[in-house]
Amino acid sequence: MELVEQMLSGDVLALARLITKVERESAEVPQIIKAIYPYLGKGYCIGITGPPGAGKSTVVDRLTAVMRQRGYTVGIIAADPTSPFTGGAVLGDRIRMQQHYLDEGVFIRSMATRGSHGGLPRTTGGVIKLLSAFGKDYILVETVGVGQTELDIMQNVDTTVVVLVPEAGDTIQTMKAGLFEIADLFVVNKADRPGADNLVAELGMMVHLRSEEEWWQVPVIATEAVNNVGIEELYRQIERHRQALEESGRLEQQRRQQRRREFLETVERRVADELFRLIERDEELARYMVMVEAGEVDPYSAADEVLRPGTLLASWSRQLAKRQSGG
Amino acid sequence: MELVEQMLSGDVLALARLITKVERESAEVPQIIKAIYPYLGKGYCIGITGPPGAGKSTVVDRLTAVMRQRGYTVGIIAADPTSPFTGGAVLGDRIRMQQHYLDEGVFIRSMATRGSHGGLPRTTGGVIKLLSAFGKDYILVETVGVGQTELDIMQNVDTTVVVLVPEAGDTIQTMKAGLFEIADLFVVNKADRPGADNLVAELGMMVHLRSEEEWWQVPVIATEAVNNVGIEELYRQIERHRQALEESGRLEQQRRQQRRREFLETVERRVADELFRLIERDEELARYMVMVEAGEVDPYSAADEVLRPGTLLASWSRQLAKRQSGG
Repeated sequence: MELVEQMLSGDVLALARLITKVERESAEVPQIIKAIYPYLGKGYCIGITGPPGAGKSTVVDRLTAVMRQRGYTVGIIAADPTSPFTGGAVLGDRIRMQQHYLDEGVFIRSMATRGSHGGLPRTTGGVIKLLSAFGKDYILVETVGVGQTELDIMQNVDTTVVVLVPEAGDTIQTMKAGLFEIADLFVVNKADRPGADNLVAELGMMVHLRSEEEWWQVPVIATEAVNNVGIEELYRQIERHRQALEESGRLEQQRRQQRRREFLETVERRVADELFRLIERDEELARYMVMVEAGEVDPYSAADEVLRPGTLLASWSRQLAKRQSGG
Repeated sequence: MELVEQMLSGDVLALARLITKVERESAEVPQIIKAIYPYLGKGYCIGITGPPGAGKSTVVDRLTAVMRQRGYTVGIIAADPTSPFTGGAVLGDRIRMQQHYLDEGVFIRSMATRGSHGGLPRTTGGVIKLLSAFGKDYILVETVGVGQTELDIMQNVDTTVVVLVPEAGDTIQTMKAGLFEIADLFVVNKADRPGADNLVAELGMMVHLRSEEEWWQVPVIATEAVNNVGIEELYRQIERHRQALEESGRLEQQRRQQRRREFLETVERRVADELFRLIERDEELARYMVMVEAGEVDPYSAADEVLRPGTLLASWSRQLAKRQSGG
């Protein structure tokens, strides 16, 4: 693909256009991923997540500055909320990360979260790949909110940083949201506020109680991102985690799992798409759909019928065979 | 199924055991759903969602009291966070809804949210069905958090109530989370706090701007659930919405869509399960998995190969045929 070649040769506009295609789940996505696949593996991906208002954007901003000082290039994916009125980003690129906008070593992309039922984690994985193929040393993925979507996105990263603030109830919210389990590092941001020491101590104890593994003790880092306090330490701990992952063989193991998941999801989606198209077209299968919609048959019994050999499968095999023989 | 018959005859213990089976996605689920399917359709399902701290539990509690006063039975599903230490609920049934615990007309169930990647919306649908088959007039589904999971759960309900509080930023959080689009009713709870009037006015304007439909104008209701203020009005508006849905034919339409989605998801899951099992067992297919995991082949190219007729499909057809001929 020409666009991919332009991107690989350093064309930022081509990168931006490819990202748009991946976000919109364009029909070219398989082609794009196939083309960039040989160029992956170099970029190291860090997820930054936590409850709204924890100051994640500022942490990302300051961490980027630390990485740039060391000469590394950075790609930033900010999963941004969308306005229901304009269809655009509520907190767009415009007001974020202003200092990095003129820096060629930093590429920033906001991704809309709304309306993509289950699509976001999938497309985020593709965007990470594009930034990695483009040659970014670090890819930072910032998510807004605390839900399943955020947990799913974090399956695509190498190191997960959970950012909290010393407000009451924050810890329990974190546990609720399942963030406790996915944290490789905790950051207690706005550490000048009352309660920060307590939260650091509390998290430290919880981490200690829970950890049974020798290879990594989850550190708790106090930061004031706005004042650039603790960010060097955060960077150092991220590097320590990366090293621990590499030395224990866990980085490769994690990435194998990511690839496996991606493959199974791809197969699943492809099969589902084919099936749904068949169900609409095939007269016998469409008959089941009508009965299901009317509540006359339960979904399981209908699935039994549809998945009998001789109905859907046979129809599917015929269609695939026809298409492949050039029909 | 004996357990289903016991449940249908009013046995609460049988209901609880069936819910546990559905939550754990037991192999008996298809059998259970098939058995209760003829008894569905009576219960009216109301979803209560919104940001953490909005007082949703109290709204549910007080709304339940209003329904009970009118002689209706109520089932409550509270999607509850799980503790990472005990595996149990953080805010369990114990401290919720105490006044209803001795009331036979109310059944309360907390569902754990953690660890079920994508499973919760699915299992919630099943639990709603069980409560409906059991004969509950109203089923209230309360979700914690503001993410994709919550939006997905709300696809299973008839009327969606979004609860907010007059704190700054709440409105924008709501839009971020996509809650604005799914709200059939807005509740501004803790309406004695400063800013409540503003939020009610703001929401009213947004609702007005956005609504192009004649059949339903989303109402904004001010409540102080703790003091029982506004709850009667909330109940009245829920009933108005139900009536509007019924008269416009939209209730039946929504439920048709729910059934359709359920059917397609069931087929998809079944097919995916079969495929994954095949990929593990079949020597040729397992070879692709090894290459994918090692990063030697991209997932799309591997899917192309696996989905060629003659590889996976043929293998699948053979297996299904063998099983059905009693092999």
